[in-house]
Amino acid sequence: LIDHYTYVFAGDGCLMEGLSLEAASLAGHLNLKKLIVFFDNNSISIDGSTKLSTSDNHIKRFQAQGWSTLSIDGHDYNEIKKAIIKSKKSNKPSFISCKTKIGYGSPNKENTASSHGSPLGEKEIELTRKKLNWNYQPFIIPQKLLNKWRNFYKRNEEEKKRWNKVSKMNKNKEFFNYIHKKTNKNKINNEIIKFKKMHMKNLTECATRKASEKSLEIFNNQIDYLIGGSADLTGSNNTKTSLMSHISKNNFSGRYIYYGVREHAMASIMNGIALHKGLIPYGGTFLVFTDYCRPSIRLASLMNLQVIYVMTHDSIGLGEDGPTHQPIEHLSSLRAMPNINIFRPADIIETIETWECALNTIKSPSVIVLTRQNVSTNFRKNLVNNMVSKGAYLVKDFKNYHVTILSTGSEVSIALETSKILKKKNINARVVSMTCQEIFENQNNKYKEKILGKKSIYAIEAASFQSWAKYVKKEHFVGIDTFGASAPYKDLYKHFKITSKNLSNIILKKENKNDN
Amino acid sequence: LIDHYTYVFAGDGCLMEGLSLEAASLAGHLNLKKLIVFFDNNSISIDGSTKLSTSDNHIKRFQAQGWSTLSIDGHDYNEIKKAIIKSKKSNKPSFISCKTKIGYGSPNKENTASSHGSPLGEKEIELTRKKLNWNYQPFIIPQKLLNKWRNFYKRNEEEKKRWNKVSKMNKNKEFFNYIHKKTNKNKINNEIIKFKKMHMKNLTECATRKASEKSLEIFNNQIDYLIGGSADLTGSNNTKTSLMSHISKNNFSGRYIYYGVREHAMASIMNGIALHKGLIPYGGTFLVFTDYCRPSIRLASLMNLQVIYVMTHDSIGLGEDGPTHQPIEHLSSLRAMPNINIFRPADIIETIETWECALNTIKSPSVIVLTRQNVSTNFRKNLVNNMVSKGAYLVKDFKNYHVTILSTGSEVSIALETSKILKKKNINARVVSMTCQEIFENQNNKYKEKILGKKSIYAIEAASFQSWAKYVKKEHFVGIDTFGASAPYKDLYKHFKITSKNLSNIILKKENKNDN
Repeated sequence: LIDHYTYVFAGDGCLMEGLSLEAASLAGHLNLKKLIVFFDNNSISIDGSTKLSTSDNHIKRFQAQGWSTLSIDGHDYNEIKKAIIKSKKSNKPSFISCKTKIGYGSPNKENTASSHGSPLGEKEIELTRKKLNWNYQPFIIPQKLLNKWRNFYKRNEEEKKRWNKVSKMNKNKEFFNYIHKKTNKNKINNEIIKFKKMHMKNLTECATRKASEKSLEIFNNQIDYLIGGSADLTGSNNTKTSLMSHISKNNFSGRYIYYGVREHAMASIMNGIALHKGLIPYGGTFLVFTDYCRPSIRLASLMNLQVIYVMTHDSIGLGEDGPTHQPIEHLSSLRAMPNINIFRPADIIETIETWECALNTIKSPSVIVLTRQNVSTNFRKNLVNNMVSKGAYLVKDFKNYHVTILSTGSEVSIALETSKILKKKNINARVVSMTCQEIFENQNNKYKEKILGKKSIYAIEAASFQSWAKYVKKEHFVGIDTFGASAPYKDLYKHFKITSKNLSNIILKKENKNDN
Repeated sequence: LIDHYTYVFAGDGCLMEGLSLEAASLAGHLNLKKLIVFFDNNSISIDGSTKLSTSDNHIKRFQAQGWSTLSIDGHDYNEIKKAIIKSKKSNKPSFISCKTKIGYGSPNKENTASSHGSPLGEKEIELTRKKLNWNYQPFIIPQKLLNKWRNFYKRNEEEKKRWNKVSKMNKNKEFFNYIHKKTNKNKINNEIIKFKKMHMKNLTECATRKASEKSLEIFNNQIDYLIGGSADLTGSNNTKTSLMSHISKNNFSGRYIYYGVREHAMASIMNGIALHKGLIPYGGTFLVFTDYCRPSIRLASLMNLQVIYVMTHDSIGLGEDGPTHQPIEHLSSLRAMPNINIFRPADIIETIETWECALNTIKSPSVIVLTRQNVSTNFRKNLVNNMVSKGAYLVKDFKNYHVTILSTGSEVSIALETSKILKKKNINARVVSMTCQEIFENQNNKYKEKILGKKSIYAIEAASFQSWAKYVKKEHFVGIDTFGASAPYKDLYKHFKITSKNLSNIILKKENKNDN
């Protein structure tokens, strides 16, 4: 049913980017024989000759990564045709180095960097036309060429008829249609509610990364078009569920990809899978390593792709690995990006609801931000509605309240503790779990006003202040705006004063002052 | 004078990361023969055997990038010693693949992933001691070993004496001392003020990227320890000044590096240069591509390194290249990072002042954010003081003012226009150029209050709202929170309403409302 090849056009610059190593390595490892790369080998980049910055032997390099390689004249149609035929017969991915001249035909700019980034200019275009013997006016396509193109249309119509005929008889056609329609919601809905009731009954204490794995057990078993993976942190990201087998060069029936230590390629490959249609990709790494994936996360947002990032170890709460592994600014910097939802669920109930939201969000990527450390389940009456789908909701309410505390993830419990402490001091503090700021911002004004309230607002998140400035003043925020440190996580929370003691002290001080 | 080698220990995961391709490619191209990489080839990563995710032939790959290669038993000291001696004789960088066993000596965990991320555990440590015949208590170093280590100290003392003696006679010793002290300030100060006066007199109109080049002409000519470069955007980033020659494998006397299309490696290599001491590195790419460098920018911040990023094409103002090239969230996401200064100068005067600040900031990296499009020079009386060093200052003031407009970079002119429009409507609008939020935040309260004022505050920046939320309400902000578009830049500013017309309308509406 899926019998097409994937063609890539890559330039000198593309092969200098590290991403090309990561992607080519995995393609070679998995023997992706339907992948054919044309390397536009013109030896020119913006700064001039590639001799300024590279001496790589690309043919050897791709051979070292398990590819078939060919070298041809990139301006010779027959050689191109032959190379494609040969590559299709290879049982490896194919790399075709096409020696080309940039600005081909331009008498003065051929083979120079000046034809890379800017137009040839009127005069040089005139000279190029002469050199190439092209006697037609701009935008005029000669009839002979037009006919040729129209014939491609006919050829492809035949191709389509053939595919339709063949596919009807294919035993997988029903499944193929199903994954392209994605309709099996009702059954899952019931399972989700059952799951929530069960865990609320037991008030399960577990890390949200583990909660994510438990949620995925349901989704992966019900939704055949989910394809998971991790950048060499499978056991830490909890991305591989019990019935999943992994993809290898000899077995493509699996639904799990060991991406290796290649965060950037993982995010890029997920974009490719989403663009191809049919499957919904998810992949995991540590939240701090979103920095490695950022260019591809941005492209997913820009291209309206449904890609799901499972980003665990989401704060100083990861403990001993220290500041290189502890995200501080990452929540703010991701929330600054257009068209992407950043979810930070507080417990197992919110985690499965987050997954439900991410699976229902088909025009934007979702980042699911999860703890390494255990969190307790926060009591909730309403388990039928998906509260995460509102972006924010009250987890503790008072008829007559004095302040509102906004919180996310592992800090929702601290906010609830704070509320308890304040109650004893006769301050009624409502607590909001703001799992997803972006979704909350899209609610109607009435709902937003209800959640934010009319009294002083405070916020707590074990991360930087920036994305909270729209709701609270800096002195009303408990978080961390410096790099972290290495220690057991409970010590770190105390050290950086991300505690109910500190938050309740701040609120007491401010609110008593307001009384005067 | 500098006669040491640089040794790298790299694991299987390091070589999977794309960064390893970029760095190895440039090292091979430049024949960095003093670079020796030990590859800890243990074939295990966190997910298990590297067979899960890679089939790369690393020896071939490094050969394809112009390296000397060796394969040895990583547990055999004699082989290691021989390999080092051999590598030192090579005229290329050296890659030594050391076959090793992870968890060496552990009877049950050797060669398994379980010895990668977690401790062996008490019992397994006991068994390992037995297997390795190690009969000492924890933290006890046998006398024989201790003597050996103490001998290294003696050997190195000799080495130091020799170096001191030789270096005294070296004709470059004076220069060597000078670049490690970095003291030639006074002369440059005068040149900077001269530069500012000249350009203020002519009210120079130019893009701030061009202003940066003009500033660099002064600094590069006066400061020998600046080393520049660009990730294949030299002509666009304006990073190469007239007297600079580039580094090549045959000529290391140059001070400019053609990094190639390798943003991540550029940022990492600059970290290496800064850590090595002696030189101050700067390097350019487009602001949107800070996403590629982000992991290394973060490490520069974390390690207190003086690295200067020249990030041009800083908004939709770059025009036709469209949303893939237009930064939106990048200013906010960089401002969210701890210990880094983000500068967005408004004109040629602020640009040279920004460079001065960056060169004086030795414990933090600086990001200099520059326009592609022309901007005019904003009139300023005081040219002696470096106003950028305050983070923010008034470029237009009124004794009796009604509102304050915060602005940066190319939008300072729009803010000034807005002030003119409002003046006609009897609203006195002060204008602040907030070149660097981080530096401004570190000023004393009195200064901060003076700049922010006591009336309504508005802000304009052709970027996302998030980093302005601490100063202004969303409805007081003119900027862009969606992806950009492709068109001439003036059309884009109109399309996204980043105009004096829109800002003045907003202020008029709000302020008249406030009057009621």
